[in-house]
Amino acid sequence: MSLQEFDLIDRFFRQPGLAADVGSGVVLGIGDDCALLELPPGEQLAVTMDLLVADVHFPAQGNPADIACKALAVNLSDLAAMGAQPLGFTLGLSLPEAEEAWLTGFSAGLRELAQRYCCPLLGGDLTRGPLSIAIQAHGRVPAGQALRRGGACPGDLVCVSGSTGLAGLALREVLGYLEAEPLEAGDRELLRAAYYRPQPRLALGLGLRGLASAAIDVSDGLLADLGHIARASGVALDLKAAALPLAEPLRRIAGAEQALALALTAGDDYELAFCLPPSQLPALRALSARLGLPCTVIGEVLTGEGVRCLGEDGRPLRLAQTGFRHF
Amino acid sequence: MSLQEFDLIDRFFRQPGLAADVGSGVVLGIGDDCALLELPPGEQLAVTMDLLVADVHFPAQGNPADIACKALAVNLSDLAAMGAQPLGFTLGLSLPEAEEAWLTGFSAGLRELAQRYCCPLLGGDLTRGPLSIAIQAHGRVPAGQALRRGGACPGDLVCVSGSTGLAGLALREVLGYLEAEPLEAGDRELLRAAYYRPQPRLALGLGLRGLASAAIDVSDGLLADLGHIARASGVALDLKAAALPLAEPLRRIAGAEQALALALTAGDDYELAFCLPPSQLPALRALSARLGLPCTVIGEVLTGEGVRCLGEDGRPLRLAQTGFRHF
Repeated sequence: MSLQEFDLIDRFFRQPGLAADVGSGVVLGIGDDCALLELPPGEQLAVTMDLLVADVHFPAQGNPADIACKALAVNLSDLAAMGAQPLGFTLGLSLPEAEEAWLTGFSAGLRELAQRYCCPLLGGDLTRGPLSIAIQAHGRVPAGQALRRGGACPGDLVCVSGSTGLAGLALREVLGYLEAEPLEAGDRELLRAAYYRPQPRLALGLGLRGLASAAIDVSDGLLADLGHIARASGVALDLKAAALPLAEPLRRIAGAEQALALALTAGDDYELAFCLPPSQLPALRALSARLGLPCTVIGEVLTGEGVRCLGEDGRPLRLAQTGFRHF
Repeated sequence: MSLQEFDLIDRFFRQPGLAADVGSGVVLGIGDDCALLELPPGEQLAVTMDLLVADVHFPAQGNPADIACKALAVNLSDLAAMGAQPLGFTLGLSLPEAEEAWLTGFSAGLRELAQRYCCPLLGGDLTRGPLSIAIQAHGRVPAGQALRRGGACPGDLVCVSGSTGLAGLALREVLGYLEAEPLEAGDRELLRAAYYRPQPRLALGLGLRGLASAAIDVSDGLLADLGHIARASGVALDLKAAALPLAEPLRRIAGAEQALALALTAGDDYELAFCLPPSQLPALRALSARLGLPCTVIGEVLTGEGVRCLGEDGRPLRLAQTGFRHF
């Protein structure tokens, strides 16, 4: 009575370092009809699901460890944006055939991030089908302290961690659209990492609890994602183009104008964008220094609606596309 | 800044009767980076994810409301098998194009079950890609009372709710393999319902808390799923072929021999199979009567390992296939 699904799960997924041990909120992991979680008193559970489809969200021929890292990281990034501490994740994996090398690489990628962010595998489903990866991440956050999109107030500052745009540039490279001359190996590797290995800003999210009035992760593009904060908060956001952090390789490879457009409209960077009152700026500076993660004030919250990015002349920039189109 | 994903979510999914309202454990539903859940003191969270892929788990051309009902029901069935009370579900939906009629039917099917079982939509992800449906269901259960696979003891009875095999027969019909003469309309409808509209046995699961020593839902086939209980509990299970409940239409359409084989090896019925001490039989009879759901004693738990089904002559039956093969 050997059902291959269960053999594959045991061999590649129910493994030390990847599968959840009992403890730290996990009552029961892989191997029953459900996993069981418990929360410390006064805490709430944050849940987020992202579905990544081959040749829509990643190239089917990509490195399986890279694909695994990206699929888990984008979910961890949602936990970060809520200020939640990871508890564990579930995996729904559909793949055309049970290829050993692919599964070895994929599970190694998952294990790497599961260990780094203390977010083990709780259970899930494995089936034959077109390559796609559904991951649900679970986190915990003290009641009432989750960072939401809806709390930004006029007078708040708009900030972003790290810099945005490199993953969008990488996507063009991955898809072969890049118009620049062939890249040097160092730059290719840098872009690959930006695209496949985004760093979920979990420590920043935890640190922003009590500081930020609203937060989101930059998955669809800075303008598009800040648009969600503006709508949920019932405010307008004005950004200053000159204030946007642009990574040196982004400027160098894409040129200044394209770099700015990518920083504003390209997705996949998984930085955090957030708002906070100016009185919290010293605390943010201290947090940023402690984490070694630059956080830049890029604009301000106003009454009104919508998100604008003002150029050097004080007039709103016009950009061709404002975010990833899902359909 | 109109991203079609968000329009589609608002139009088809963020709707009364389907999307979670705040309350009953839901702190925050659709529309932020994560949903937020809370648990009453002393309760644990049960989570289960199933991934259904078009033309693997259901025909791509199937009725979208049926597909939705099946996708949610199979997850609710996992909650039932743990004795958990539904809290809500998340949905990762990949579909080739955003077709209005399909989405209308699909969301209506989800709404029907969400309302019937008090399990609203908490959030998720919607993307372009091959048709597939990842659903994670969330339930709550008092600490220590979840029904697991690992508690069966020698001397316990083995039971099953309802009857098994009809969904497997339906699958043959759906896939065009059925060798019997063309079916009458009434039988076709009955098979369609058995396949697409399994009844998650949530009330039974709740009632079995404190009665059953082990439980599982029958998704891969009765022998295969009872095999999980035998392994997890470190016991052997002996079933009696003559005791198996066979629905009248299953006998009539498939014939006696094939009916028995389907009841033992076909999946997709989503009944509960469980073990309990003989002393709990009166309580089970009362529960069964209260729910109007037959529960049949089909065998016993012994020391040893493996699952056998004994024929009228007391010798183990030999069956060609013992469960759904995932690859």
